[in-house]
Amino acid sequence: MRIGRLLVTLTALALCACAAQVPVLRGTGDLGVVVERETGRLKLIETSGRTELATIGGLGDLSHASVVYSRDARYAYVFGRDGGLSKVDLLEARVVGRVVQAGNSIGGAISQDGRLIAVANYDPGGVKVFDAATLELLSDIPSAGGDGTRRSKVIGIADAPGNRFVFSLFEAGEIWIADVSDPRHPQVRKFTGIGKEPYDGLITPGGRFYIAGLYGEDGVALLDLWNPEAGVRRILGGYGRGEEKMPVYKMPHLRGWAVAGNVALLPAVGRNEVLFVNTDTWAEAGRVAVHGQPVFVIVQPGARRAWVNFAFPNNDTVQVIDIPARSVIRELKPGRAVLHMEFTPRGEQAWVSSRDDNRVTVYDTATFAALATLPADHPSGIFLTSRAFATGF
Amino acid sequence: MRIGRLLVTLTALALCACAAQVPVLRGTGDLGVVVERETGRLKLIETSGRTELATIGGLGDLSHASVVYSRDARYAYVFGRDGGLSKVDLLEARVVGRVVQAGNSIGGAISQDGRLIAVANYDPGGVKVFDAATLELLSDIPSAGGDGTRRSKVIGIADAPGNRFVFSLFEAGEIWIADVSDPRHPQVRKFTGIGKEPYDGLITPGGRFYIAGLYGEDGVALLDLWNPEAGVRRILGGYGRGEEKMPVYKMPHLRGWAVAGNVALLPAVGRNEVLFVNTDTWAEAGRVAVHGQPVFVIVQPGARRAWVNFAFPNNDTVQVIDIPARSVIRELKPGRAVLHMEFTPRGEQAWVSSRDDNRVTVYDTATFAALATLPADHPSGIFLTSRAFATGF
Repeated sequence: MRIGRLLVTLTALALCACAAQVPVLRGTGDLGVVVERETGRLKLIETSGRTELATIGGLGDLSHASVVYSRDARYAYVFGRDGGLSKVDLLEARVVGRVVQAGNSIGGAISQDGRLIAVANYDPGGVKVFDAATLELLSDIPSAGGDGTRRSKVIGIADAPGNRFVFSLFEAGEIWIADVSDPRHPQVRKFTGIGKEPYDGLITPGGRFYIAGLYGEDGVALLDLWNPEAGVRRILGGYGRGEEKMPVYKMPHLRGWAVAGNVALLPAVGRNEVLFVNTDTWAEAGRVAVHGQPVFVIVQPGARRAWVNFAFPNNDTVQVIDIPARSVIRELKPGRAVLHMEFTPRGEQAWVSSRDDNRVTVYDTATFAALATLPADHPSGIFLTSRAFATGF
Repeated sequence: MRIGRLLVTLTALALCACAAQVPVLRGTGDLGVVVERETGRLKLIETSGRTELATIGGLGDLSHASVVYSRDARYAYVFGRDGGLSKVDLLEARVVGRVVQAGNSIGGAISQDGRLIAVANYDPGGVKVFDAATLELLSDIPSAGGDGTRRSKVIGIADAPGNRFVFSLFEAGEIWIADVSDPRHPQVRKFTGIGKEPYDGLITPGGRFYIAGLYGEDGVALLDLWNPEAGVRRILGGYGRGEEKMPVYKMPHLRGWAVAGNVALLPAVGRNEVLFVNTDTWAEAGRVAVHGQPVFVIVQPGARRAWVNFAFPNNDTVQVIDIPARSVIRELKPGRAVLHMEFTPRGEQAWVSSRDDNRVTVYDTATFAALATLPADHPSGIFLTSRAFATGF
């Protein structure tokens, strides 16, 4: 009997140890996830062998989902459209935490020190700040802009140096900087009258400028975080839908802006063009004609090229721009409904999702050869762990 | 007896499983190593809790050692002064491969795709290319510059986009680009007459420019990798030891050049100054007086500051420069013989080694508070895994 029990104990020990080993010991620097929007699942992938490792479900509504990573590149924080914030362990390929923290959410960010997750909410409007380890709610910043009677939808949230989050209020037309150094008592600095209906925002590489695109009027709001005393100023007065209100199939993501040296590349709104902007003067510095209305313009790391995808009905195509030559040098057809592109951090591969052909294609950026094609169920966003090491995601 | 054997088997299984678990399942994005130069060991550290995890020995002569990381951020490749190339598994905290591949070596690099390790050798002069997985020798590029009769010491090796390595030949005064896309048959492009005795080199962030400092004359050699047809040109004619041949306590590392936007910060040679250079024109754009002869000038990610350390006898001090203000805003005393500084990738911490006080100090870059002090035996270089995601190391 005693031996029997010992056997059971030892067997349990061995099984337990083996079970615990199922998540293989491995580095996390070459991992990533692909959002499968229809099924609410993530595909876990790795970029060294370019293979799929696992599928992770139980994440709710992942339409328009985005992802940030913990500073050790082990955990993905997934922001769902349904207000769900999920913490996924990439090594164990499972959800280890989940809170449905609002009714309708549009994205989030992780603080510079990796200890806080902020979620931008539509309904009720505001920003909630969570402990990255436990997902405990630490503070709630209601987005009552203007006279304080009505909450705005919060859009364009980004992390900034100094454990700050920057975001915009759609209805109120404001930009707020929340300093969460003391996460239970955030200090909020407000910039009012920045323009009508900011609909997306971004922080430039390095974390200096916060830029908000305007839906309600033309032009772009710019805040220099090195000199916030100067306030928000308007740049690119002609940028937007314009007087004619041309049909816009899809408002381009501002996160689709690309910065290379002192040049920014912007998807034009409603026009088949990519705009070049000098980031010293923030004046337009040229245009390149492209295949359709651009959605994302993304600079290839370590190279002088940008890749562009397009809105319907031209969304089966990707074009590659040579930045100094300001010309399209290549056109690719990765499949129907190309929604997203992600480069490996040193730029040798580009991962491209084709929603309506249910696949992700991995390109060699030097030869444009397709290195791998991975099946995926209506894939949208692709997020690699190298994002853990960058500011402004 | 059968039960006894089963017990032994199960116990062995359990022990084996437990032993295999000693390397804890963990992300590798927040790991790093500190070189202990006297003892030939590495300290394995992590930056989330700011603690030491292990000590790894058996690495040979680590004076002037440098480290690069595999693309999954699991393995460190350590280049020792004795020609040793060691592969260290950070998760198991042990050396998993080692070759002594030359008599005297000065550093190495990892290819863009992560599959190749190149080592720059003094004796015999040349570059050897190894398989990153197995450390198998794939090719040997003897550095027979000039008329081909004599091998030069190879210095300043860096990876460039397109699976290329760029390096300089000290005696011959040449810069070579080796394309290792076919690693057993590297294609070498040579630039001759680039200046007397290049002693160090670097590639700018993004991988566009290769820059070699000259020991034998003033000025700096610049190669635009986007336009190699233009050849190597000389910039900064006054940069160097100058006519007077002032006493130079330590030739500054060129890797100590810092680039922020379109400004580069350079340690002056033999003078207590940091130089500012416009990277559009490569002309000098100002100077800041500092505490001693600068060795490393390193830009804090996501901020507008650079940290500077100094040569003997002023090597107990670190100064912090505000780049737009071009002024020193802070002075720190981390200990005697500050040899190296490394920022976490999003810039919230700075790790600083003090060789003669046998410690590493971790600073909060916002408050300059010392967050942690870790004992280390004569620490020199500090290398975080975030280097895996950057070009030019």
